[in-house]
Amino acid sequence: MMALVEELFPICRSITGNGVRRTLEILRRYIPLEVNEVPSGTAVLDWTVPAEWNIRDAYIASDDGTRVVDFAANNLHIVQYSPPIDAVMPLAELRAHLHTLPDHPDWIPYRTSYYVKNWGFCLTNHQLLSLADGFYRVMIDSDLAPGHLSYGELLIPGEIGDTVLLSCHICHPSLANDNLSAIAVATKLACHLQTLRLRYTYRFLFIPGTIGSLTWLARNEDKVGSIVHGLVLSCLGDSGGMTYKQSRRGNAAIDRIVAHVLAHDEVPHRIMPFVPYGYDERQYCSPGFDLPVGCLMRTPNGEYPEYHSSADNLSLLHPENLAHSLAVLQRIVTVIEGDAIYRSRNPKGEPQLGRRGLYATIGGQREPSYDQMALLWVLNLADGHHSLLDIAERAGAPFARMRAAADALVAAELLKPIHFQG
Amino acid sequence: MMALVEELFPICRSITGNGVRRTLEILRRYIPLEVNEVPSGTAVLDWTVPAEWNIRDAYIASDDGTRVVDFAANNLHIVQYSPPIDAVMPLAELRAHLHTLPDHPDWIPYRTSYYVKNWGFCLTNHQLLSLADGFYRVMIDSDLAPGHLSYGELLIPGEIGDTVLLSCHICHPSLANDNLSAIAVATKLACHLQTLRLRYTYRFLFIPGTIGSLTWLARNEDKVGSIVHGLVLSCLGDSGGMTYKQSRRGNAAIDRIVAHVLAHDEVPHRIMPFVPYGYDERQYCSPGFDLPVGCLMRTPNGEYPEYHSSADNLSLLHPENLAHSLAVLQRIVTVIEGDAIYRSRNPKGEPQLGRRGLYATIGGQREPSYDQMALLWVLNLADGHHSLLDIAERAGAPFARMRAAADALVAAELLKPIHFQG
Amino acid sequence: MMALVEELFPICRSITGNGVRRTLEILRRYIPLEVNEVPSGTAVLDWTVPAEWNIRDAYIASDDGTRVVDFAANNLHIVQYSPPIDAVMPLAELRAHLHTLPDHPDWIPYRTSYYVKNWGFCLTNHQLLSLADGFYRVMIDSDLAPGHLSYGELLIPGEIGDTVLLSCHICHPSLANDNLSAIAVATKLACHLQTLRLRYTYRFLFIPGTIGSLTWLARNEDKVGSIVHGLVLSCLGDSGGMTYKQSRRGNAAIDRIVAHVLAHDEVPHRIMPFVPYGYDERQYCSPGFDLPVGCLMRTPNGEYPEYHSSADNLSLLHPENLAHSLAVLQRIVTVIEGDAIYRSRNPKGEPQLGRRGLYATIGGQREPSYDQMALLWVLNLADGHHSLLDIAERAGAPFARMRAAADALVAAELLKPIHFQG
Repeated sequence: MMALVEELFPICRSITGNGVRRTLEILRRYIPLEVNEVPSGTAVLDWTVPAEWNIRDAYIASDDGTRVVDFAANNLHIVQYSPPIDAVMPLAELRAHLHTLPDHPDWIPYRTSYYVKNWGFCLTNHQLLSLADGFYRVMIDSDLAPGHLSYGELLIPGEIGDTVLLSCHICHPSLANDNLSAIAVATKLACHLQTLRLRYTYRFLFIPGTIGSLTWLARNEDKVGSIVHGLVLSCLGDSGGMTYKQSRRGNAAIDRIVAHVLAHDEVPHRIMPFVPYGYDERQYCSPGFDLPVGCLMRTPNGEYPEYHSSADNLSLLHPENLAHSLAVLQRIVTVIEGDAIYRSRNPKGEPQLGRRGLYATIGGQREPSYDQMALLWVLNLADGHHSLLDIAERAGAPFARMRAAADALVAAELLKPIHFQG
Repeated sequence: MMALVEELFPICRSITGNGVRRTLEILRRYIPLEVNEVPSGTAVLDWTVPAEWNIRDAYIASDDGTRVVDFAANNLHIVQYSPPIDAVMPLAELRAHLHTLPDHPDWIPYRTSYYVKNWGFCLTNHQLLSLADGFYRVMIDSDLAPGHLSYGELLIPGEIGDTVLLSCHICHPSLANDNLSAIAVATKLACHLQTLRLRYTYRFLFIPGTIGSLTWLARNEDKVGSIVHGLVLSCLGDSGGMTYKQSRRGNAAIDRIVAHVLAHDEVPHRIMPFVPYGYDERQYCSPGFDLPVGCLMRTPNGEYPEYHSSADNLSLLHPENLAHSLAVLQRIVTVIEGDAIYRSRNPKGEPQLGRRGLYATIGGQREPSYDQMALLWVLNLADGHHSLLDIAERAGAPFARMRAAADALVAAELLKPIHFQG
Repeated sequence: MMALVEELFPICRSITGNGVRRTLEILRRYIPLEVNEVPSGTAVLDWTVPAEWNIRDAYIASDDGTRVVDFAANNLHIVQYSPPIDAVMPLAELRAHLHTLPDHPDWIPYRTSYYVKNWGFCLTNHQLLSLADGFYRVMIDSDLAPGHLSYGELLIPGEIGDTVLLSCHICHPSLANDNLSAIAVATKLACHLQTLRLRYTYRFLFIPGTIGSLTWLARNEDKVGSIVHGLVLSCLGDSGGMTYKQSRRGNAAIDRIVAHVLAHDEVPHRIMPFVPYGYDERQYCSPGFDLPVGCLMRTPNGEYPEYHSSADNLSLLHPENLAHSLAVLQRIVTVIEGDAIYRSRNPKGEPQLGRRGLYATIGGQREPSYDQMALLWVLNLADGHHSLLDIAERAGAPFARMRAAADALVAAELLKPIHFQG
């Protein structure tokens, strides 16, 4: 995953344009993404697909021609969606178009102006302070013209049409944790799921933030009803603990599933209630859709100092964090796929596990083994009402252990499945 | 309000009599109270309006004629409802009629014997210890005879008949916090409400404790059904934090409203569950009425040492505490009046706030402003099910902020009101 | 109760056999137990009543004939259900049949092998280490042959058929806390209940663990439906605090009742959620029965170091602990028997308690008495919906106080009973 992040890092992505296309192209080397192109001007819900933005070069030059701020050095130097300009102006006039982070004088901020035409440059505070009075040439060689919005989509069909949505934003330029990390983890998860026989259908979206999810929702209102679980993926490579932001419903199945997996994970975690700010869960959880979609992160947006600055670079990511995030997602899939309701075939009293080789032969010992407890829990709650996740929660034990116990009990003809969840 | 308290303080009030009448008269200089007179002997629910009690003079004199305890010095010296007496008796016999506070030897207790004929004097423990053996003249120049029970009532009509009850007791003699403080705050609140265009109807009761609320309830059973929120007001002038005692229901709208207002108040507060002891909420919350009536106080009855003693005097009150109590009540009224349910006109995805001037123009910044969050919360939960108070609770933000956001969104035609609460 | 424990302690009990019969015989001196004998081979639910086991002698002797491990010294030395054997074997072969507690080298463990034929000896780790290499004679003079499973049952009829089940296991040999303590307490409780006029029917079971409860359930399926409350009793003589393990339902009436009684007890206590391990609650709470049966203990099985070893002997028990456990059970019975729902005859406003002699005559005092508060609570919640236990829980006061207040209010004709619980 780290190699993929490294390859994607230098590309200047935005909510539209060739950077996004190039990114999707690279992902298609791993997974058979379908790339959609939606024309500028298309009405999507309350919004309109904006003009396409592409940029070739941009700089601020002092009067001797020296580039004092240069897009070629770092693509964060330009405010995204800056229209073209080529002008000379005094520092006083230029200053209104310059953005810095005074608290982090060595970092370049990330700024956008998608929906209001407004050019600007981002630079370090040190750069700003070193600018002498006088005149500067401002040059932005960009196009802001009718084109298309591009996004990638992958459907991995399962036995049933009920769908798990996995969505990540692909609109940020050279920012590593937000969100190349999640792009890489989602790509790897999709690779993995393609190798499995799946019960649920999985839909992956690689989309520009906000306008991308709005566009997908507007074009796929008929598919929205089949989404039974969903996760927005973001910031999955930093060294912080796991964070799960609940869906608007707060008690959706995905909320319980993720909370269960994280509770039995070795890494510390936090559950945050829904707030209508953040990533594309804002759109999926708008009141007209109210989808069961939460957001899985390590350190959330806005909570790490490097967020939305040039310091969110490759040094913030560690391969083991990406691998751990992927493992958590795989465990979440395991619960989604494997949860089911059973009924005991011997509900009156405990069945005699001993003669079926499922019980310790010498009695009187202090404690049962973990596996023995799992067998007893599953039998005790196999009443046609409790799902394996219900049982795992009540037993305070990981889902996988209940899943294994259920398999052993089915094999011993002590249990029959009533129905799978979903 | 302090001036009003000071004017009322010297008057000897009881559950009936001229002290109450004089008090209501003074209040009528501020608000157009209707004064009701209910004859002694009137059956009110399980009770009977007692004889009217008036007192002119009372003292204990030593054999040289010196008044060693004198009602003229402090009206707490007499047990309320003491019948007339003029007798000479030895100290040993007198002692059974004397009440002191041994733990606070400088304070005079407040005692009553409304429903059992029993004369008595209250004095400081120092006074008691200084009484030499010998004979004393006991003189109480009082009337305990058929008359009337008096109480004041003010109805401030609103658009709808649904009524907010505000009730305070006016039966205590020279006790400042309990309850001249609440009488003053209620009077001021009534003045304020009269200047507003109100949705709800407000009913203020200035009544003697227990028998007054029983009398009002007995005479107004037809009006009880229209009470949708209610507060008993008491002890609102001391320097303690705010205390809210919940209604018997515990989850009435008023319980949520007061808890919300106090949670966002700058002063510490406490929420106490209902107990069937305290003030007139005992009657309003009796099982046959079970009204949604809580009790708002600063330090509750019985929890401050000066309670029901001569130390509950003007020095215990501070104008800023009275003003703060009034401000809290005004904020409660704001929620009662302003809570409503809305529906978004653009429920699918977020509406584009930017083009309506309701969103920051430069994106990428770390945190949204408070007001921007309020707009997002209201839009996200404007689903026809959540009221503004629900939204404020979920957002963890004060109601007023949600109210302002809703107004801005209605003005931008993004929201339509479904119905007001109540 | 201590004398009964001491008499029962030396007997070698198992899940079948003469030790159980002798034990029931002794209990019959106190209570008119019905003794049931169920033949080996009888199918009971998923199980079969096993062969009856009786043992006369057992030892390991060194080659000079010295008994190095001797059943006569302690009946824990033999693994329960060891089949007969008389053989000479080298220590290496013998070792696989020896059980010790290395962490407690002076204690003999308690081990069983009821359902797999497997002989064995239990000894102290010191004994094990002192065994020299060489040959040993192993002698077990036991019978493992068709016979009967014996259990005792006592029905104490009440006014209604709704039944309270009290169950304790009688299958352990010389172990004092587990479970002679509970046998003695249950016997004493049964004696006590026989002297009362009871509303509920009480059923006591003195049964071998697991197979005993399965046998009773299999033979009495028609009676299971009448069980409305139940407790398994175990480990009631040690000096630990009280422990209540909830029924599978977790919110059964018995769960609330026991939690209430323990919350107002002077001894610390713990409420544990149901787990499908422990004593016969495993069977009563299997999904096909799901009875409202919890388990009352002092220190739970497995949590005290002496558990299932020779150190669980008479020195672990104290008469005052047995007496306290009995007192707790009696208080539980008091709630079961005395809980009821009332309706106030004067629900509008408080009735005037003073003229009925139920209120302090001098008013103005700081705090009501406990009893006065109980009267006010019962009156306030006597609305035909709240039971006395509901009221006690809400008042945070012991049930007995509400019971007394209700009696006083019924006597004063202020309350009428609607119906008793159950």
